[in-house]
Amino acid sequence: MSDREKPIGVAVLGLGNVGSEVVRIIGESAADLAARIGAPLELRGIGVRRVADDRGVPVELLTDDIAALVARDDVDIVVELMGPVKPARKAILAALEGGKSVVTANKALMAQSTGELAQAAEAARADLYFEAAVAGAIPVIRPLTQSLAGDTVLRVAGIVNGTTNYILSAMNDSGASYDSALADATDLGYAEADPTADVEGYDAAAKAAILASIAFHTRVTADDVYREGITKVTAADFESARALGCNIKLLAICERLTNDEDKQRVSARVYPALVPNEHPLASVNGAFNAVVVEAEAAGRLMFYGQGAGGAPTASAVMGDLVMAARNRVQGGRGPRESKYAKLPIAPIGFIPTRYYVSMNVADRPGVLSTVSAEFGKRDVSIAEVRQEGMVDGEGQRCGARIVVVTHRATDAALSETVEALADLDVVQTVNSVLRLEGTTE
Amino acid sequence: MSDREKPIGVAVLGLGNVGSEVVRIIGESAADLAARIGAPLELRGIGVRRVADDRGVPVELLTDDIAALVARDDVDIVVELMGPVKPARKAILAALEGGKSVVTANKALMAQSTGELAQAAEAARADLYFEAAVAGAIPVIRPLTQSLAGDTVLRVAGIVNGTTNYILSAMNDSGASYDSALADATDLGYAEADPTADVEGYDAAAKAAILASIAFHTRVTADDVYREGITKVTAADFESARALGCNIKLLAICERLTNDEDKQRVSARVYPALVPNEHPLASVNGAFNAVVVEAEAAGRLMFYGQGAGGAPTASAVMGDLVMAARNRVQGGRGPRESKYAKLPIAPIGFIPTRYYVSMNVADRPGVLSTVSAEFGKRDVSIAEVRQEGMVDGEGQRCGARIVVVTHRATDAALSETVEALADLDVVQTVNSVLRLEGTTE
Repeated sequence: MSDREKPIGVAVLGLGNVGSEVVRIIGESAADLAARIGAPLELRGIGVRRVADDRGVPVELLTDDIAALVARDDVDIVVELMGPVKPARKAILAALEGGKSVVTANKALMAQSTGELAQAAEAARADLYFEAAVAGAIPVIRPLTQSLAGDTVLRVAGIVNGTTNYILSAMNDSGASYDSALADATDLGYAEADPTADVEGYDAAAKAAILASIAFHTRVTADDVYREGITKVTAADFESARALGCNIKLLAICERLTNDEDKQRVSARVYPALVPNEHPLASVNGAFNAVVVEAEAAGRLMFYGQGAGGAPTASAVMGDLVMAARNRVQGGRGPRESKYAKLPIAPIGFIPTRYYVSMNVADRPGVLSTVSAEFGKRDVSIAEVRQEGMVDGEGQRCGARIVVVTHRATDAALSETVEALADLDVVQTVNSVLRLEGTTE
Repeated sequence: MSDREKPIGVAVLGLGNVGSEVVRIIGESAADLAARIGAPLELRGIGVRRVADDRGVPVELLTDDIAALVARDDVDIVVELMGPVKPARKAILAALEGGKSVVTANKALMAQSTGELAQAAEAARADLYFEAAVAGAIPVIRPLTQSLAGDTVLRVAGIVNGTTNYILSAMNDSGASYDSALADATDLGYAEADPTADVEGYDAAAKAAILASIAFHTRVTADDVYREGITKVTAADFESARALGCNIKLLAICERLTNDEDKQRVSARVYPALVPNEHPLASVNGAFNAVVVEAEAAGRLMFYGQGAGGAPTASAVMGDLVMAARNRVQGGRGPRESKYAKLPIAPIGFIPTRYYVSMNVADRPGVLSTVSAEFGKRDVSIAEVRQEGMVDGEGQRCGARIVVVTHRATDAALSETVEALADLDVVQTVNSVLRLEGTTE
């Protein structure tokens, strides 16, 4: 431990769930933190939108002048937990330009302005940490940037959004429809009043961008991520999935693709997918998160835990804060990730995936053969077909449902096949198209 | 990235499974590694016991003069992968005294001489990394020392020995006896010719000592770890475990204990335990490892992956090597863990655990009551009892087997109870005593 005992000044921006927990831990664990850092942490102030004496902290710590707080000479580290991207970006850039280290949980910002922020940190020779931006308390950023720094990451697949995992788990457990599961999640506080960011996959896409950036040493933003949400997943899909020995999960997938000429590209995508029950992600339920990393030497690793919530996210923030403070005390800063690889992003059409297609068809001979032919024309090989008769309200047969599971093919060939199927006379409707995860056939 | 391009000189000591993989990766990933580090890695030499031209590497890189290799001016980082403790300790101390950073996978050494080595690293202002010493490719050291540096770790429980997990998984799957499962494991190369270090729990105990040291910021050596191996686990135990909805696993458990006066102690222990099927460790099978960490703010986290083998262990070594090299390039060194807490070790007798006791008893009325009384006398509360009649070769009843599962009590009270049971006239033999994990009742 260093003998330098000058305290490390901390400014916390934002006093929501996470901010309150961070402030509480800084207070309650002061002695332990000082021992681990080699100097005490001192909270200089808390930036809030509204200064009031009912916030559970001494009112004199509160300020709505974020710029002045960040600029204080006695602030060494700024912890940004405000949420909205614009003010967060401004505050973080000001902090870095002032030579302060920054800890943030802002995934939307990190998935958008990471290049700009990393440059500012580099210029200031300051730390910029963001472990809490992906998967809450679960350490994934540090393992990817440090523990796997000598390995070659091939693939990252994760359940990184607790709200959608809660909804999908409820649909799987109870057979509920999407709308009813969403309504329950909203009642219980698992989904926000406007759930768009979660259910349309924007939140997961931001995290996929961050994961792809650090896993593949290349710059990936949220706009580079192919994205489908969970709003079209039906109770019937869960029924079919169960019959196929699968669960349905919203996955964030980052993949390194190498073509025949050894050229590498990166894919980052978010969509609901059928996951075989024996896959480790299939049994990650409720609000839990998990990330599976496949690396050349390490093989398959899994990280599992609570991906959201005030205390778990605060744990990740505090880890970053202690590391940034230790670096200050020891007169250095942490090792930086370099985005040297500059790999191009592969469009979704090029990605080899497997499809699950569910469609209602006319109940007459030859339909299956007509349907199969559309797959064959595009070199899409079929792995499994299930056909079942459907009955109407009077118990009369009124058509059939066909579920097709394909082997791997390019997403372009698969989506062309689905378009062609929809145009067939014998196909009444294509009910669902989902991808399959976790098998390479 | 730094503009300094001076290469980083590396010496690898040992050319077994792990050493060969490390040498291979340094060669094959040279360009990637250089980009990530900011300078190229250059392999200065490989220390081996026997210099020969059939080792798969250029013979001029090999040397049996470890001391001379470590002392070379152009060696910046020494990677110790030799195995035996004595020469490893000597080489590592020499390296650190010469100002070189050290990466090691030597769990036995790290569980024994960690204080001495940490001091030498501190004096030399050099890095000492040992991620590969625990759970192979699975990042656990860095998450505990860095990601959770701002949280309070309460408990670590892990499956950290692949050989015993392979044997126990085989016993669970096939109903095999311990001896036959061990013989199979030896034939398949999962167990060494002399399996003592694995099956008696020494390997797991060394890892428990390392985990407890970093989780609780206190010094724990392998000698502080209470240890029981798996040699006495029987096929009948697996049968009873199954009836109780459990699997049996060799666990390394590190716990922070707080008594009524708020005094803290640390427990580190290794023993086979019944693990309820719904516990995340119950389904970790074969040669896989997993570590569950419970922290105050983070809640429960799990890390899962390949705990042994050349390539997975090399992945962890390479991560440490890249970090140590980056620190050299950037003119600093990594943050150090301080063992400030100096918590005392709690003897096993004080630890609250749950017991599973299987015994053969006389098949007559009143036996269950006599047996139960021994638990009651020592304030040990019984959670579950199963009694079944036993038949001899002729199909005649010849006694009964009673299995008792207790609620939590101190290990001392439980082990006293078992001694008293063995002395009862009605008890023919106490077949097995195992602890239970994962429930707090």
